[in-house]
Amino acid sequence: MNSWGNIFRLTIWGESHGAEVGVSIDGVPAGIVLSEEDFVADLDRRRAGSAGTTTRKESDQPHIVSGLYNGYTTGSPLTITFRNENTRSGDYSNLVRQPRPSHADWVAQKKWNGFNDPRGGGHFSGRITLGMVAAGVVAKKILGDAVRFSTEITEIGGERNKDKFAAVIESARMDQNSVGGVVECRVDGVEAGLGEPFFDSAESLMAHLLFSVPAVKGVEFGDGFESARIRGSQNNDPIIDMQGRTATNHAGGIVGGITNSNEIVVRAAVKPTASISREQQTLNIESGAVEPLIIKGRHDVCITLRAAVVVEAAVAIALADLKLRR
Amino acid sequence: MNSWGNIFRLTIWGESHGAEVGVSIDGVPAGIVLSEEDFVADLDRRRAGSAGTTTRKESDQPHIVSGLYNGYTTGSPLTITFRNENTRSGDYSNLVRQPRPSHADWVAQKKWNGFNDPRGGGHFSGRITLGMVAAGVVAKKILGDAVRFSTEITEIGGERNKDKFAAVIESARMDQNSVGGVVECRVDGVEAGLGEPFFDSAESLMAHLLFSVPAVKGVEFGDGFESARIRGSQNNDPIIDMQGRTATNHAGGIVGGITNSNEIVVRAAVKPTASISREQQTLNIESGAVEPLIIKGRHDVCITLRAAVVVEAAVAIALADLKLRR
Amino acid sequence: MNSWGNIFRLTIWGESHGAEVGVSIDGVPAGIVLSEEDFVADLDRRRAGSAGTTTRKESDQPHIVSGLYNGYTTGSPLTITFRNENTRSGDYSNLVRQPRPSHADWVAQKKWNGFNDPRGGGHFSGRITLGMVAAGVVAKKILGDAVRFSTEITEIGGERNKDKFAAVIESARMDQNSVGGVVECRVDGVEAGLGEPFFDSAESLMAHLLFSVPAVKGVEFGDGFESARIRGSQNNDPIIDMQGRTATNHAGGIVGGITNSNEIVVRAAVKPTASISREQQTLNIESGAVEPLIIKGRHDVCITLRAAVVVEAAVAIALADLKLRR
Amino acid sequence: MNSWGNIFRLTIWGESHGAEVGVSIDGVPAGIVLSEEDFVADLDRRRAGSAGTTTRKESDQPHIVSGLYNGYTTGSPLTITFRNENTRSGDYSNLVRQPRPSHADWVAQKKWNGFNDPRGGGHFSGRITLGMVAAGVVAKKILGDAVRFSTEITEIGGERNKDKFAAVIESARMDQNSVGGVVECRVDGVEAGLGEPFFDSAESLMAHLLFSVPAVKGVEFGDGFESARIRGSQNNDPIIDMQGRTATNHAGGIVGGITNSNEIVVRAAVKPTASISREQQTLNIESGAVEPLIIKGRHDVCITLRAAVVVEAAVAIALADLKLRR
Repeated sequence: MNSWGNIFRLTIWGESHGAEVGVSIDGVPAGIVLSEEDFVADLDRRRAGSAGTTTRKESDQPHIVSGLYNGYTTGSPLTITFRNENTRSGDYSNLVRQPRPSHADWVAQKKWNGFNDPRGGGHFSGRITLGMVAAGVVAKKILGDAVRFSTEITEIGGERNKDKFAAVIESARMDQNSVGGVVECRVDGVEAGLGEPFFDSAESLMAHLLFSVPAVKGVEFGDGFESARIRGSQNNDPIIDMQGRTATNHAGGIVGGITNSNEIVVRAAVKPTASISREQQTLNIESGAVEPLIIKGRHDVCITLRAAVVVEAAVAIALADLKLRR
Repeated sequence: MNSWGNIFRLTIWGESHGAEVGVSIDGVPAGIVLSEEDFVADLDRRRAGSAGTTTRKESDQPHIVSGLYNGYTTGSPLTITFRNENTRSGDYSNLVRQPRPSHADWVAQKKWNGFNDPRGGGHFSGRITLGMVAAGVVAKKILGDAVRFSTEITEIGGERNKDKFAAVIESARMDQNSVGGVVECRVDGVEAGLGEPFFDSAESLMAHLLFSVPAVKGVEFGDGFESARIRGSQNNDPIIDMQGRTATNHAGGIVGGITNSNEIVVRAAVKPTASISREQQTLNIESGAVEPLIIKGRHDVCITLRAAVVVEAAVAIALADLKLRR
Repeated sequence: MNSWGNIFRLTIWGESHGAEVGVSIDGVPAGIVLSEEDFVADLDRRRAGSAGTTTRKESDQPHIVSGLYNGYTTGSPLTITFRNENTRSGDYSNLVRQPRPSHADWVAQKKWNGFNDPRGGGHFSGRITLGMVAAGVVAKKILGDAVRFSTEITEIGGERNKDKFAAVIESARMDQNSVGGVVECRVDGVEAGLGEPFFDSAESLMAHLLFSVPAVKGVEFGDGFESARIRGSQNNDPIIDMQGRTATNHAGGIVGGITNSNEIVVRAAVKPTASISREQQTLNIESGAVEPLIIKGRHDVCITLRAAVVVEAAVAIALADLKLRR
Repeated sequence: MNSWGNIFRLTIWGESHGAEVGVSIDGVPAGIVLSEEDFVADLDRRRAGSAGTTTRKESDQPHIVSGLYNGYTTGSPLTITFRNENTRSGDYSNLVRQPRPSHADWVAQKKWNGFNDPRGGGHFSGRITLGMVAAGVVAKKILGDAVRFSTEITEIGGERNKDKFAAVIESARMDQNSVGGVVECRVDGVEAGLGEPFFDSAESLMAHLLFSVPAVKGVEFGDGFESARIRGSQNNDPIIDMQGRTATNHAGGIVGGITNSNEIVVRAAVKPTASISREQQTLNIESGAVEPLIIKGRHDVCITLRAAVVVEAAVAIALADLKLRR
């Protein structure tokens, strides 16, 4: 399903090398001041350009084609589209025959009997996250200024010292390889009470969106996997005031699936980019044999760099949907 | 929302000390052989009784009250209820005034303005997972015998040697404390092609359900967080045959959000039980001061022991829903 | 799907001759005063007993098994069950072989490959509407006292003079036949602004629920089909004050799919009961030939009498869901 | 909500005088041959041009911007957009102040606190049905050639003789007025078994979509309201063969909410266009007084003419969604 949400519902579409990618957002309250300018900062965070990112550059110009009038949202669906411009379809022609390891090529062929659009990963391209980033901008407007996001990369290739991130990436690039990383999103100022038992816990909704983002393979809240390794007395957060603040925040701002007014802390593990330049082995579906594969085209060495804002968008979207349900 | 699913849709209800807990499952295909006996094995895995689990014992007798006729599912909603019998409401009377650290007491009061049922955690009790376990049994019938589940606890309190699990738990119990753990579920025989881009990836659906389970704070697939620490050449899984099998399985059976026919590997981090016997500090909402708290009642030292089958159920439910969408 | 609703979501289950029928309602706000007594009046309106209704009598005793604590709703699912008591399964044994004309027998067999519960219509029995009536009671509590329902039967067997309804029904009964009728529900005091474009118009939601009610074959709002026969100048309702009141109310309180503060007027056409006592012709699926059929058992001559409160419930449920979305 | 559907899910957006209107359709099976040409015939049926329709003409050129590759659907969202070209916003400037009788102007202002796009009815314009017509074309492809639609107007302004329709419309036009009508859609070749109890009956889904179409005020199946006026013996349809065919078809091809293989017959009542040229009275929200109103701009005398294909699309979409659930 390419739709998500209960009240704040987004629908996305597009392929890497098709005419456009887009998102239509339903349930946006009327009267929010909005312009195409508002999307620039987050779209820039997602764009290629820095070291470790692909050299394919798109203008990523958002077009608001519905739901806005006189600079305010109208209450009807807010639709934002992006034209695909800088496409080089020729780069990908051999990938139908030889599906890339750990990429969606083979499952897409299998699932849609070969009718999937294979160019640049088609609908599985990271380019589809443009719509999620745009929806995240709107979500943050709904949450309001009192809710502050702080998103950063805490690990790249196992390295936690930020000063060394550039070197880790450069080393992988020189090696015609790629590296993964971990993104941490912290959200301050979230009111208590967001999250619906049983199935729509705040954690469930965030994780649902985060695992929709290509390359995310793990999600944890608060101490996450580390909390599984300690005792209750170490993990419990004593409540210390009537606002629900806790002395510690091992829970990452969510207990029983419901926000408790403390800072929300969520981390997503991003795997290394599947497309690497060095030679790999994989099946040739014509010959039926495993053969060498060289992936051409332009790819990110460390997709984590561009994924950070997408993680933030996912968290914001989940919180906005929960807020509007109240 | 207490409903989940697109075609295989479950709705759950109940409180720890209410009249009953139950689940109604919509979308169950007609003609599946089913009896109340079929639920016994999984319900037993979830039951208290072994070391490290609570001494509150319930018969956990399932009652199929709709959707079954002459031993076969009928195609109309399959409803399974469980009566609550062994309740001691008196144990919990002081918890309204003094919400337990890292439990849902405070957020529930906040969210529902004090009208929540506080007895035994009310709707936030682990007892509500009975319905999920029951739905998991039905989901596994839908998936068929070729799909095999293997679920085990891989860590308790940071210890990975299974021979030492009992000692870790006993140590925590002696210390009036609790410990967390990690559950790993492996599923063999899942067909390729399950999972829907963008938002209903196989990972998204499993994670959505897993983070609904009380105490789960982290979820990862395949190498998960470890994959964020390695390079693409180490993480990529070369495809080696026309069935989609891969030489390695770092992806845990899912690429691009879609199953690829390899074994599905998912892990859930379960935090230590929030209710511990030793004295803690927390807010007294009447006095507004932080005061000592002694939690009475019967509690699990290591809820991970009982959560394993719930994790398995969550995975099975997600896969069944995806299978029925095809 | 046996679930319906966005915020106020109901899930129903049960068969005519199974163990129980029930409804679980999610999204009920916490803090509503509720008791089993509150359901009696509407359940009585639905019950058999008066002339023209079946002689099968059930106690229809509601059991609130979750979501209520100390006399208030808790915010977690409110579940209400009804035991089936007065069942005579023997009456229906021949209907598997010879599906009744205009009843669900044949389609149910076809859809579920013969695994459907055939006793008393199984899941297609009007008895399943018990849950809808119960949900309607809760919905009306959510709408509040300012919203007043007035539901009446405006036609039976084509007769519009209420004084003659009893005679029309008695005539049909003497003739071993049945008659249809029209139910009109008027709702006063509904705030303006309920209804969501495009697909969740107030009319769409009410009609969705009304056409779920067995035997309903037509739904219209305001002047309905009559409005198709007149001119714009006759059909248009001039707005006369700042509250949105209109000089006339041909629209039945809804324009553009959204309530406009005027009285909501909706009518449902209820077909004559399909089960009639007189001999009919229909297929014998064993012989493959059309043969005479005598339907035994207890049936309503005019199901419209009991359907009125179900129509009202459907309207109330739709309005409650829309109100809670705001 | 501007999304609808379970498996075949459509999302629509746009305003009458915005940049574009569009539809994104999720759940379209891969491998369907499709081109922009395929939409022309149905879009032409919806277009203005014939007597009784507005003189505003749009090219209504569909742009498939995602989900199509090499002439086949890909399995990812199929998105179709239409640019708005022939807009005259100046025509509508006075309508914010003086909301038109029986139009959505007032409720839209009320619901969205004046932030709605008022130009040409904004999101409430009949122009938004372009997306529904496009989705109907795709739905009919999914249903296949064996399913045949026959849609016609059976009444205009109360007149049932088709030869007189033109005169009825011309008379209304001369009178600066408008007329309503009834559209009947018949569908042959629909398999038995489509429709889900309880809430997603075939009738519920069709009615849900039909009441989303602006101006529809009544929906009936088979004999509909007429069936409420007759006896069971007259209304019952005897089954006559193993395919489920019935001697008569008073039920309109649906019993118990499920298709029975007979011709589906559904009728929608379309009210007269609310915008008429003659002077009307309505509130002036600035003065608070009821004042004369002259509606300028270009309007349809009989919107029923253009609504017929939209009714057909609604029926097709509902059937396609039900078919894909099986």
